[in-house]
Amino acid sequence: MARVGVVLSGCGVYDGAEIHEAVFTMLALDEAGAEYVFLAPDVEQMHVVDHARGDVAGGEQRNVLVEAARIARGKVVEISQAGELDALVFPGGFGVAKNLCDFAVKGADCTVRPDVARLVLAMKAARKPLGFACIAPAMAAAIFRDAGVRGVQLTVGAADDGAVAALTAMGAEHVARAVDEIVVDVAHRVVSTPAYMYGDARPHLVRAGLKKMVDAVLALV
Amino acid sequence: MARVGVVLSGCGVYDGAEIHEAVFTMLALDEAGAEYVFLAPDVEQMHVVDHARGDVAGGEQRNVLVEAARIARGKVVEISQAGELDALVFPGGFGVAKNLCDFAVKGADCTVRPDVARLVLAMKAARKPLGFACIAPAMAAAIFRDAGVRGVQLTVGAADDGAVAALTAMGAEHVARAVDEIVVDVAHRVVSTPAYMYGDARPHLVRAGLKKMVDAVLALV
Repeated sequence: MARVGVVLSGCGVYDGAEIHEAVFTMLALDEAGAEYVFLAPDVEQMHVVDHARGDVAGGEQRNVLVEAARIARGKVVEISQAGELDALVFPGGFGVAKNLCDFAVKGADCTVRPDVARLVLAMKAARKPLGFACIAPAMAAAIFRDAGVRGVQLTVGAADDGAVAALTAMGAEHVARAVDEIVVDVAHRVVSTPAYMYGDARPHLVRAGLKKMVDAVLALV
Repeated sequence: MARVGVVLSGCGVYDGAEIHEAVFTMLALDEAGAEYVFLAPDVEQMHVVDHARGDVAGGEQRNVLVEAARIARGKVVEISQAGELDALVFPGGFGVAKNLCDFAVKGADCTVRPDVARLVLAMKAARKPLGFACIAPAMAAAIFRDAGVRGVQLTVGAADDGAVAALTAMGAEHVARAVDEIVVDVAHRVVSTPAYMYGDARPHLVRAGLKKMVDAVLALV
């Protein structure tokens, strides 16, 4: 049974992990009979967004790991304590671009948290597969850029020109995909899917893309 | 296309809506081609639980509707503004028993929020189907008790003797069910499923139960 890390960046699309994507990722792993372990850094969020109003909630502060535990029903492990993993996947949400790296602020000049980059590169060095959904491929591109790895095939869909341009600027090869499709870079053992990069996507199509991503990752284990 | 209300009680199993159940409910509605509208009362939560520690987070306060918007990707409607609905479903989570009623504190002596009870009874009076998952059947039993409706068939699984006893004390007829099963009370047009009343249930079985609940509710529309 494969043991797969699922990295969460909080709980809620605008300041944390995209909830539907996180749940669909877990569901696909469970359906495939894989063991999953939720991971998160123990760090304050960049900010808190009132998801009803869509504005930053001034004066509030929340912790990425503590909020991630809402999705994980309490079972979340600090990312540096992940233990032995066979694969690693990242659901999306602005939390990836705000709490795991600063892509939301700096675009292609972004910096990735060292604990996150370290784990991704350790997996890659061990030829273990990686999965990235939604905006997480932008963070992946930054990690690979910093490690001198160019030309990794990734998708952030086709709807967001800025994200596509940033991915390319960081040295990745962007491949346009529909919401329920994936890109598999077999050489680099990296799988990605656009998910809610198509912001109005219907949930069952987001679910289909994430299931394909998870199944492709597991096939590479 | 049926228009179905999905009532959320926050965001997170210990003080709000159970996230997996809410997402699986939405997924099943989307797969069936139904329109869904997330609903929540605009009210402060009973309290905030740190889901990593499992303890109440002292001094923090959150709003049910604002937190529900995390699951709804911003699109949540105040419950009294629901508009015309063909069916109404309640995912579970302690939020149902803490924010929509006070079952978590008072058990069979609980009181249900008037706006929630009013909507449920309006649906029932119009012979429109209702769905209740996890602990939500306990709230349903209280609503039916207050309306003088006895003997509605409901399930909260079989694992929690206290919940079963409370349901019975409130005048409902409890039917034991596995996590991936449902009870359909055709006469009262009420469907229920245990979901995470089996706390260690595997997500794909919770998903199966909720999909059956949603499909049974839609079949009654």
